[in-house]
Amino acid sequence: MLPLWGIIAASALSIVYGVWTINSIMKADAGTPRMREIAGAIQEGAQAYLTRQYTTIGAVGVVIFIALAFLLSLPVAAGFAVGAILSGAAGFIGMHVSVRANVRTAQAASRSLAGGLDIAFRSGAVTGMFVAGLALLSVAGTFAVLTVGLGHAAGDREVIDAMVALGFGASLISIFARLGGGIFTKGADVGGDLVGKVEAGIPEDDPRNPATIADNVGDNVGDCAGMAADLFETYAVTVVATMVLAAIFFAGTEQLGAALLYPLAICAICIPTSIAGTFFVRLGTNGSIMGALYKGLIATAAMSLVGVALVTWGLLGFGTELTTTRGATFTGLDLLLCGVAGLVVTGLIVWVTEYYTGTDFRPVKSIAQSSVTGHGTNVIQGIAVSLESTALPALIIIAGIIVTYSLAGLFGIAIAVTTMLALAGMVVALDAFGPVTDNAGGIAEMAGLPDEVRHTTDALDAVGNTTKAVTKGYAIGSAGLGALVLFAAYTEDLNYFISNASAERFSYFQGVTLDFSLANPFVVAGLLFGGMLPYLFASMGMTAVGRAAGAVVEEVRRQFREKPGIMAGTDRPDYGRAVDMLTRAAIREMIIPSLLPVLSPIIGYFIILAIAGKSAAFSALGAMLLGVIVTGLFVAISMTAGGGAWDNAKKYIEDGHHGGKGSDAHKAAVTGDTVGDPYKDTAGPAINPMIKITNIVALLLLAVLAHL
Amino acid sequence: MLPLWGIIAASALSIVYGVWTINSIMKADAGTPRMREIAGAIQEGAQAYLTRQYTTIGAVGVVIFIALAFLLSLPVAAGFAVGAILSGAAGFIGMHVSVRANVRTAQAASRSLAGGLDIAFRSGAVTGMFVAGLALLSVAGTFAVLTVGLGHAAGDREVIDAMVALGFGASLISIFARLGGGIFTKGADVGGDLVGKVEAGIPEDDPRNPATIADNVGDNVGDCAGMAADLFETYAVTVVATMVLAAIFFAGTEQLGAALLYPLAICAICIPTSIAGTFFVRLGTNGSIMGALYKGLIATAAMSLVGVALVTWGLLGFGTELTTTRGATFTGLDLLLCGVAGLVVTGLIVWVTEYYTGTDFRPVKSIAQSSVTGHGTNVIQGIAVSLESTALPALIIIAGIIVTYSLAGLFGIAIAVTTMLALAGMVVALDAFGPVTDNAGGIAEMAGLPDEVRHTTDALDAVGNTTKAVTKGYAIGSAGLGALVLFAAYTEDLNYFISNASAERFSYFQGVTLDFSLANPFVVAGLLFGGMLPYLFASMGMTAVGRAAGAVVEEVRRQFREKPGIMAGTDRPDYGRAVDMLTRAAIREMIIPSLLPVLSPIIGYFIILAIAGKSAAFSALGAMLLGVIVTGLFVAISMTAGGGAWDNAKKYIEDGHHGGKGSDAHKAAVTGDTVGDPYKDTAGPAINPMIKITNIVALLLLAVLAHL
Repeated sequence: MLPLWGIIAASALSIVYGVWTINSIMKADAGTPRMREIAGAIQEGAQAYLTRQYTTIGAVGVVIFIALAFLLSLPVAAGFAVGAILSGAAGFIGMHVSVRANVRTAQAASRSLAGGLDIAFRSGAVTGMFVAGLALLSVAGTFAVLTVGLGHAAGDREVIDAMVALGFGASLISIFARLGGGIFTKGADVGGDLVGKVEAGIPEDDPRNPATIADNVGDNVGDCAGMAADLFETYAVTVVATMVLAAIFFAGTEQLGAALLYPLAICAICIPTSIAGTFFVRLGTNGSIMGALYKGLIATAAMSLVGVALVTWGLLGFGTELTTTRGATFTGLDLLLCGVAGLVVTGLIVWVTEYYTGTDFRPVKSIAQSSVTGHGTNVIQGIAVSLESTALPALIIIAGIIVTYSLAGLFGIAIAVTTMLALAGMVVALDAFGPVTDNAGGIAEMAGLPDEVRHTTDALDAVGNTTKAVTKGYAIGSAGLGALVLFAAYTEDLNYFISNASAERFSYFQGVTLDFSLANPFVVAGLLFGGMLPYLFASMGMTAVGRAAGAVVEEVRRQFREKPGIMAGTDRPDYGRAVDMLTRAAIREMIIPSLLPVLSPIIGYFIILAIAGKSAAFSALGAMLLGVIVTGLFVAISMTAGGGAWDNAKKYIEDGHHGGKGSDAHKAAVTGDTVGDPYKDTAGPAINPMIKITNIVALLLLAVLAHL
Repeated sequence: MLPLWGIIAASALSIVYGVWTINSIMKADAGTPRMREIAGAIQEGAQAYLTRQYTTIGAVGVVIFIALAFLLSLPVAAGFAVGAILSGAAGFIGMHVSVRANVRTAQAASRSLAGGLDIAFRSGAVTGMFVAGLALLSVAGTFAVLTVGLGHAAGDREVIDAMVALGFGASLISIFARLGGGIFTKGADVGGDLVGKVEAGIPEDDPRNPATIADNVGDNVGDCAGMAADLFETYAVTVVATMVLAAIFFAGTEQLGAALLYPLAICAICIPTSIAGTFFVRLGTNGSIMGALYKGLIATAAMSLVGVALVTWGLLGFGTELTTTRGATFTGLDLLLCGVAGLVVTGLIVWVTEYYTGTDFRPVKSIAQSSVTGHGTNVIQGIAVSLESTALPALIIIAGIIVTYSLAGLFGIAIAVTTMLALAGMVVALDAFGPVTDNAGGIAEMAGLPDEVRHTTDALDAVGNTTKAVTKGYAIGSAGLGALVLFAAYTEDLNYFISNASAERFSYFQGVTLDFSLANPFVVAGLLFGGMLPYLFASMGMTAVGRAAGAVVEEVRRQFREKPGIMAGTDRPDYGRAVDMLTRAAIREMIIPSLLPVLSPIIGYFIILAIAGKSAAFSALGAMLLGVIVTGLFVAISMTAGGGAWDNAKKYIEDGHHGGKGSDAHKAAVTGDTVGDPYKDTAGPAINPMIKITNIVALLLLAVLAHL
């Protein structure tokens, strides 16, 4: 049990690092009273929104907790609670530090670029390390309590069910947080831009715009807390699914214990390497911000590789042959190579995403060029780029599947994804850096700091846009592969229940025969039904942003009308009302779309059960899970990459190409950027948790049926 | 063999009807010399484009013909040629009558609405009846020549291979024609609007716009000839795939002959019912054009139902039990019910498409409403509607699959789709009516006919927009289901080869074991790879339109610059150059995207073969086919319905809502319409043939491998 305590110690280490870093950030200068006042308003709004969001999710969570305790057992329900609460905590802490680092970044940026970068990045690192640390703690801690504390055997159903429930808890938070946060942030952004930039003709972040504080709040609750919940969930459910596979593949073998600990150990070793990696982020002599960030990422990856090799050697041995109960045979070295493949996939996806969203390459330039002929051609080209951007990531993922499967079967795929996600601490750090610099720019603008400061924060912000796009590619790639592991867990779990079914145990599964063949029409029906869900879900997300933005427009127009002094600068807008209104809108709008993926597997199963019996229903449900993955992957990649490309095409024009700011091409590019906003920050990223939640609900459904 | 001659007679009947109708249309008054001149320019352009398109496809076709003759046999190559040539003929004849009916419709409309409707609809009916008649003739004729003429047994491989090759010939024409025509028409439309409406501020169809003839040519080569090729192909390949299934399912049984003739007979009986249905299209006392068209459609469906019942009774008997070689058992009545299900699916899809694209319902109104807040929100809402519009059709198709499979297994699904497609003559008539009225309006405008004429043609054109959207829904629904039948043919064919493999025959398939289970990672890889293709293909289509439109803009600007008299009306624009330029652009742009679905199955197969052997490669290839269907269905529906909704949202505003023509909302709606153009008329509909061509290439690949 020594490794298990080591794993828990590693997760504790990340929390220690986080607390220590928060303290050091808080010691930095928070700027002028005006800056503090603005930051205070952002803090207040973000805190109020997240509190309300978590309260709402809490209400849903309590119902599910009771249902799980009743349908399965109290430990399983407790697992659910642990997943949900720690995921919520990671998001909340991330937001907490981010809304305090923003003003300090602005202040530091008024002295030097390096200083601004330092605070913004360390703030992101806090979020990253809390995400990785708490996610690992939740899984490893639950596992420790159940096995060491309550004395369950490591591969026991009770343990597996509790872990799956933990994943479900994390998923539930994640889908609500991604959607709610996404609707809030893009409702504010789109609505604020429409009424501010377009109607009133005032620049972004102008303090006269009543939606401007809401926009900054949105960055923190959407891009920071929402993204944290998303990666917490991907991390947790992937490790859980890998452990489920390990429990089935190594059931009754002497390697069971080591195989169960192996994914946890990979994650654990990557925590110190990620922490060490943060210290490599230093502005070099060339002043390249992106270069500084990549230095950290590459250092982390290199050290992690060594770490994973050590873990593999220590736990499994390089040469030892492992044989699964399904007959696959591989060595520890094969698994290590799968981990390497996971890192290569990460690197390639980062590279492709940068190609599709960076201003130096054909896609973004082509959108900028097409803006010259108007709004319509800008959008056509943007959509074309968004569709195209799915091809290379899909091929990379396919290659990853084939290579890792050839090395070590389904377990190989699982280990590759686990290794990919083990770097989450560092990757989230790069992402959470974005909203801090975005806010810092906003605060500099609103507080009327000198232009040079805005210049520095703009430089940081531009890099933040790229890292946000890149980490979204990573999040979706890993989510897609993670979902495949979940799907494999579903099929293996189902096979396990069926082959062990008797009158005493798993009696529900007696007589069920599985036919996952594509020639089975229920499989085709399931694939199509699953394939439909991301489309419907994305549509709901887009519509919700449209409605929230419309409400913002109405509110801002009302304030301008009732307080004519706002535009003249003699009267202060009521920022709080815009924040309040968006809070209500986002919470209201997030409920139904979030329930879609939760309820669809259950309803779908029972409909087919009624029509054609258990065997057809289980096959259709499995196909549905894969259908969600197949279309979800494409919808998500096309939306996030396309949105990023539209955003940067606008920036490219603002940098002086095709007529620059204020030209007709720029106006067309602004339209594209507006369309890209809900694409890249609401609907697209929310597909990640929606893919996984359908899979994890199906796993839970199996557990409940097995318990009948 | 009596039924076979009856079937051929029915297809001849449709040709007689077509020739007779062409003659009666040609007798109508072709209007003023100015109108004839304009129509002459359109005729010339359309003829030139199609000739060039077919010449290009011909070059590709000759290579394939030789390859097939070499790899398989001359009869198989001849089958390919028949499919390609008759499909080309249907498109060419459709275009031929359409470019002559347009001016006559304009002239008739100057006297009465009923007169205009009559000519336009009958012109559409010519295209429709030629599509259905020639498609049926190609399949039934080839079958007759091979079985009766050359004496092959009905279920012989040589016969099946030739039929599959016939389907491939039709597919090849279809993908090129849909894409080439789509790029031409939308390049002209988008480019012409951008430079005419937006830059020069002249109305649509203004004779001063040098792209205006090209725009009208585009309607004929894209919406008429392209659509004809598309439905010819769906019709032919579906009947072929159904016959392949029949040959396998009833191999060696005494019902083989009847089962092979059954799909042909269903199609045959629906030809007289479709012809009779055309006579029901009469403007009622309420003056509703849509009502008149629906009267024809409903009459056709009702008569066809009776006809299919008679055919079922005569060929199979209602009560006779049929047992397939795969063990499914059903009666003739069950198959009839499958046919009814096919008609119900058609009706429901028509209804849903009208909901999503009609101006009376929430989706279009919501896009119009969102135009008030600008270009960006219009596009966001349009995308949201386009994504949402996939849900109900997917559910309808899923229900259709489950119901028909429960009734009569895979053969039941095939019969349902065959029945759906048997109505193609009438449905295509409704669709091909659209470009004629569109052209008539353009000619009225250019020839300076009185406003009332334009009013009448506008009323016809508005209905044409709806029927175009509705028939696109039908085309995609039937293509999706047809592709599933093709996919079933692939799996059954493969099973047949594997189970009959020996050292003498089908030796390539010796030792191959199929694993189409979703738990097989090669299946997952295949699904993802297939799923990627529609995205990449759609992206290419969108980009091609963007480029072609850009070229049109340049050309028109050049003409305005070099001949300043054009705008003053003292100088005539050079319409021919715009047509020439677009012809070159469309032909150039159609090649690579068209080859993508043709080559992907072959390349994909050989890559996986090299990595993991035959069994994995066949499984991955099968999964790839289904992957194309799964994402292709959603991409196609979302694009065609979304594009139609955008178009009608603009019309809704032009009808005086939200400020009407010239308002800011209208400008935003024009942007949406521009985006919707390549969505609904290029990329979206071209997905239909691309889904099927991948499937039919895979079937051909099997035939070639079996021949090794």
